[in-house]
Amino acid sequence: MTFDHVAVVGAGLIGGSVARRLAVLGRGITVVEPDVAGREWADIPHADSIPSDADLVVVAVPLDAMPTVLTTVAEQAPGAVVIDVGSVKGAVADAAHAAGLADRYVGAHPMAGTEQSGFAHSTPDLLVGATWAVTRGSGPVADVVAWVAETFDATVLVTDAEAHDRAVALVSHAPHVVANALLGVVAQADDPAARHLAAGSFRDGTRVAGRDARRTRNMLADNAAALGPVVDELIAALEGYRADLADPDALLARLDRVAPWRRGEPAWAPADLAAAVAAGTPTLVRRTVSGWESAPAG
Amino acid sequence: MTFDHVAVVGAGLIGGSVARRLAVLGRGITVVEPDVAGREWADIPHADSIPSDADLVVVAVPLDAMPTVLTTVAEQAPGAVVIDVGSVKGAVADAAHAAGLADRYVGAHPMAGTEQSGFAHSTPDLLVGATWAVTRGSGPVADVVAWVAETFDATVLVTDAEAHDRAVALVSHAPHVVANALLGVVAQADDPAARHLAAGSFRDGTRVAGRDARRTRNMLADNAAALGPVVDELIAALEGYRADLADPDALLARLDRVAPWRRGEPAWAPADLAAAVAAGTPTLVRRTVSGWESAPAG
Repeated sequence: MTFDHVAVVGAGLIGGSVARRLAVLGRGITVVEPDVAGREWADIPHADSIPSDADLVVVAVPLDAMPTVLTTVAEQAPGAVVIDVGSVKGAVADAAHAAGLADRYVGAHPMAGTEQSGFAHSTPDLLVGATWAVTRGSGPVADVVAWVAETFDATVLVTDAEAHDRAVALVSHAPHVVANALLGVVAQADDPAARHLAAGSFRDGTRVAGRDARRTRNMLADNAAALGPVVDELIAALEGYRADLADPDALLARLDRVAPWRRGEPAWAPADLAAAVAAGTPTLVRRTVSGWESAPAG
Repeated sequence: MTFDHVAVVGAGLIGGSVARRLAVLGRGITVVEPDVAGREWADIPHADSIPSDADLVVVAVPLDAMPTVLTTVAEQAPGAVVIDVGSVKGAVADAAHAAGLADRYVGAHPMAGTEQSGFAHSTPDLLVGATWAVTRGSGPVADVVAWVAETFDATVLVTDAEAHDRAVALVSHAPHVVANALLGVVAQADDPAARHLAAGSFRDGTRVAGRDARRTRNMLADNAAALGPVVDELIAALEGYRADLADPDALLARLDRVAPWRRGEPAWAPADLAAAVAAGTPTLVRRTVSGWESAPAG
């Protein structure tokens, strides 16, 4: 599926990288950003509203701006397919439905990023070859899966918003909570010896902490329903370690139960795209030279 | 200070790296390991007991073997200075005192390591240029600080065992608890979508988890007194995040209070080594071409 003219709303790291990829491929692309004056646009076409011939709108704005922007998109682009690239899917789907986009909205989430943010750090390759989540719903899911897979040479995990949000609560949002909690406790202690003895475990464990508080807040707050129970489990786990500090045998048994958790190679098989999208469970999809393949996620 | 013949007891990653450094420098070195037969020694001299002319014994065995080994060292090397390189200092100092080594024992802890363990992964450079902690006590602290600084081109943090253990509880042991708790919760959930959406925050946050359970257990259990209150603070912090998930403004304020925590450049000044060692607070020491320098830790 190729859309002829894509409008990317929001000129940050992700929106910029979507736009630069499309520009490199020679596709029709316009970045829509109200504040067009203050930026270094290079050769990326840009405008302050959505062009009337846009047939796909990619909304790449902060999560807390989604409801307002989706309402504007619904008005400015009455016929286009609309996707977003936010890191939480249930809350954005609700906002899209509230904006009247139910039959033409599909959620997407590229699993890529850098320490940096902003259009100036965007690149044509940032999202290429990454895994993208695309969420099932009442919009044209297969068209969006095809466009993502072909445009970004992506493996697409097709799933529903609830399963997506539960998964990222575990492997993205909980790690952000833990990293911020750890950095907060250590910084608060402000121990002079600790500054000089900080080990790799501390640097790695706090890498994502203490930065971009608004973006982190948006992720966590918009996914509170899925994240809350995970944080409860983390608290229970820490209470278990706390109790076992006084019992070396129990502590060893607890640590021994923690084993690396890795994914195996998916069982790829030729597949019909529409059937893969219609499956009820998280399903991986990719495009190869011989056609579409799918595999159960696991 | 140069010791003429160093005996390194224990042929693991750290002991091996101490021995290989001394061999490269052409110093007298013997690795002492009961199990000499099953190893690839290259050109490192080795024996199954401490040579009678050893004037420095470096004990580099797992923490839970320290009490037994220190007792053996006291018997086999009745005149030598004895140091250890374990990651907890209070418990080892207690064991050294119990072994009758109070007047010739000094604790040390090189802040370096790799994902690997074992003699086969040891290198002459692993501990060079690292920060080493050396703990004050009733032994020949200045001699050991001088030997560490000169042998390993090291910056030495001279501190007492209690301050060392409090510091590593914050910046090494608590990160290990948090990483294992996070990996445990995620692995337990075993969510098929999560395997494919795992982000850098998860990989970094769990890098040190699920490996070498006995070593981790020893670190945590031997430092339970300092680590317990830190885990309590982590639990309280997670409870704060949990509560604030329902209050986006409070969550933003909480995240905004977490700021990167970095050390500044120490205020190095020429110093007398004995005076720096005798100071009551954590003090950095290094050897330069013009002599000893020290700086307050902070």
